[in-house]
Amino acid sequence: MQVEIYPEKEKWSELTKRPVIKREQLTEIVAGIFDEVEKKGDSALVEFNKKFDGAEVKNISVSQEEIKDAEERICEELKLAIQEAKENITKFHASQIPEIEKIETTNGVICWRENRAIEKVGIYIPGGTAPLFSTVLMLAVPARLAGCEEIILCTPPDKMGNINPAILYTANLCGITQIFKTGGAQAIAAMTLGTESIPNVYKIFGPGNQYVVAAKEFAQNYNVAIDMPAGPSEVLVIADENAVPEFCAADLLSQAEHGSDSQVIFLATDEKVFNETILETRKQLEVLPRNEMAAESLNNSHFILLSSIEEALEFSNLYAPEHLILALNNFEKYIPQIRNAGSVFLGNYSCESAGDYASGTNHTLPTNGFAKNYSGVSLDSFVKKITFQNLSEQGLKNLGKTIEVMAETEGLFAHKNAVSIRLKKQNERI
Amino acid sequence: MQVEIYPEKEKWSELTKRPVIKREQLTEIVAGIFDEVEKKGDSALVEFNKKFDGAEVKNISVSQEEIKDAEERICEELKLAIQEAKENITKFHASQIPEIEKIETTNGVICWRENRAIEKVGIYIPGGTAPLFSTVLMLAVPARLAGCEEIILCTPPDKMGNINPAILYTANLCGITQIFKTGGAQAIAAMTLGTESIPNVYKIFGPGNQYVVAAKEFAQNYNVAIDMPAGPSEVLVIADENAVPEFCAADLLSQAEHGSDSQVIFLATDEKVFNETILETRKQLEVLPRNEMAAESLNNSHFILLSSIEEALEFSNLYAPEHLILALNNFEKYIPQIRNAGSVFLGNYSCESAGDYASGTNHTLPTNGFAKNYSGVSLDSFVKKITFQNLSEQGLKNLGKTIEVMAETEGLFAHKNAVSIRLKKQNERI
Repeated sequence: MQVEIYPEKEKWSELTKRPVIKREQLTEIVAGIFDEVEKKGDSALVEFNKKFDGAEVKNISVSQEEIKDAEERICEELKLAIQEAKENITKFHASQIPEIEKIETTNGVICWRENRAIEKVGIYIPGGTAPLFSTVLMLAVPARLAGCEEIILCTPPDKMGNINPAILYTANLCGITQIFKTGGAQAIAAMTLGTESIPNVYKIFGPGNQYVVAAKEFAQNYNVAIDMPAGPSEVLVIADENAVPEFCAADLLSQAEHGSDSQVIFLATDEKVFNETILETRKQLEVLPRNEMAAESLNNSHFILLSSIEEALEFSNLYAPEHLILALNNFEKYIPQIRNAGSVFLGNYSCESAGDYASGTNHTLPTNGFAKNYSGVSLDSFVKKITFQNLSEQGLKNLGKTIEVMAETEGLFAHKNAVSIRLKKQNERI
Repeated sequence: MQVEIYPEKEKWSELTKRPVIKREQLTEIVAGIFDEVEKKGDSALVEFNKKFDGAEVKNISVSQEEIKDAEERICEELKLAIQEAKENITKFHASQIPEIEKIETTNGVICWRENRAIEKVGIYIPGGTAPLFSTVLMLAVPARLAGCEEIILCTPPDKMGNINPAILYTANLCGITQIFKTGGAQAIAAMTLGTESIPNVYKIFGPGNQYVVAAKEFAQNYNVAIDMPAGPSEVLVIADENAVPEFCAADLLSQAEHGSDSQVIFLATDEKVFNETILETRKQLEVLPRNEMAAESLNNSHFILLSSIEEALEFSNLYAPEHLILALNNFEKYIPQIRNAGSVFLGNYSCESAGDYASGTNHTLPTNGFAKNYSGVSLDSFVKKITFQNLSEQGLKNLGKTIEVMAETEGLFAHKNAVSIRLKKQNERI
């Protein structure tokens, strides 16, 4: 825990730096995996399952039986929770479907945009101890709402060759069309190139380790799109004198438990709240079941006392946090000052885990300062916005001269001629 | 000109292939240029101007005098044309500014999105014979509407060290904050890294040669975003028996004149229209001032006779053209069947050059099949959509159990605790 009291502004750029991500030479390894998958298809995936996950899997496709079995193994309480989260995520993302608005820019010239779903999308869900069925909701719900036809999911099997039932249950509930037992860079390769079982897709979504991140970057060489560049998770909390230290500490720790590279920043303007939050964080850390990762993450994190909320927002905009919590009494006043952030949580009862799971907003957000130039995942991530235009005869007549003059100035005479030939035809008829 | 009469469907995937882009080893060259710019800043740019553009430029910043001078050199006719195009582009892109819609997903849980401009953006405009001031309009107008604070523009000088007056005039008219005389990979490096004169930016837009494209890709290693991946320009025209062969030919040629690697596809269902369009294309090509590039491009292009409009649309969706022209009588009927395209031009009077210059839609569009997974540039390209949420005490009470159950199932106990600690506090108070 690095504590800073009223640091000079010159020090800010140092304080807003991310821990450097080691850019190891993973490209070669990833290229080798893509090569294997391209050559051997499914059988390469079976081999990698053995090699990397110690899993003996005969059929990489998840069967209907396995899905049915998963459904039976999920308790009612969890089903209800998933259902409620799904409804909220659906409500919020459905509100992002735009109405078509036709604009007559010049008399007789009508322009508009229409959404079209990306036809084939792939979702990657990592394995490991935490079964991230919440990420299945966050990606499959908008994909389905957008109208994507094929929504496939890849996730690594456990040593017994099984997939966590919560993931299977959620995937099936959300209308995922096919589920496959494969993880790591090889799963990304399979969704990029296609195999006998796994169809290739046009866009790949989802979190993962450094190999998955490198493989997603590599997939772009094959004209596949990806959701966004990746980095460790982050939260920045801004607290005034009305903030509740226990709540602030709990929010900071809920970010810190994600991993030792997670980053946590606490900015306060009130000394009492500042000091009590530091104490509370230490206290709550002790009783956390898996507190080692959180403790490591806190080591790299900053607790900073600043002189005003304006100053805190300036710092936050410089840092561009993935999650920003405003534990402020009159947060409305400060919303216009927020320039760079992935998702913002307002007031003492808007904890980050609400957005992580169930309020309805998406939890796939820009990290590592990418909140300066990227948005989080939304319905937009699953569609293309195609522009349409219709010019009537009169419309072209009204706009023709302008197009001709501009095309000629750019030296593009065939562009000009496409207008001239039409105008000429009109005149001939008159 | 490759002519195909009712080709078998098995042949389609061959016919929809793009000419392979030679992925030369440009990364090393580009990395060297980034290195030079990082070390020497402005003076590296001055040297590159000499080396690559044969231009002696003392000050890479364009002065107010130069802008004033450019304004005087533009004729009134062109000024009026630029003004009309600018108004239409403004109208259409302003319609893309969304109203904020607050969604109450659960009682007491309110979620919404707000646009925030990307604060610093860079626009690259290539040099060469065609002064692409239309691209300045297409990028600067939405950047300004979005509210980007710094909008800088880099473009290479001519041998005399000057920039085309139409580019300077348009840039100034659109509120570009600073203009610099530098081109190629070094311009992209400068906008990525910053120099004494040129500020670094968060996102880079604009077309360019293979070095510029490679440099934009390389810039992403420095966490800079780019508009979209690039490839040669394309048009696909679908014509029925009511299409006008002269118009179709003119549209095909207006695409072909862009460069020898441009691709042109003509699909017709009527033999007479098909044959006449082929004849007309040859005829119009002859009288085109710069017909060599267009002729080369036509060599690689397909003229295909198909048996129905449905089949033509199926082919088009497989190809995913940057520009799609429906020279059809009842085009409305076919709009829902369009799945993959950058921008669509409807009817006999909606020529591509209308959208290239002045109708209001953006001409920066996905090429090379990227219309399957990317949208063209729009107002969205210049903003981040930040999600906000506010939970009241009651809101968290309503949603708390769901969050707790989900967090616990994922093994994330601090996430759960952020809710539990708040619910406990509520209960204590009651």
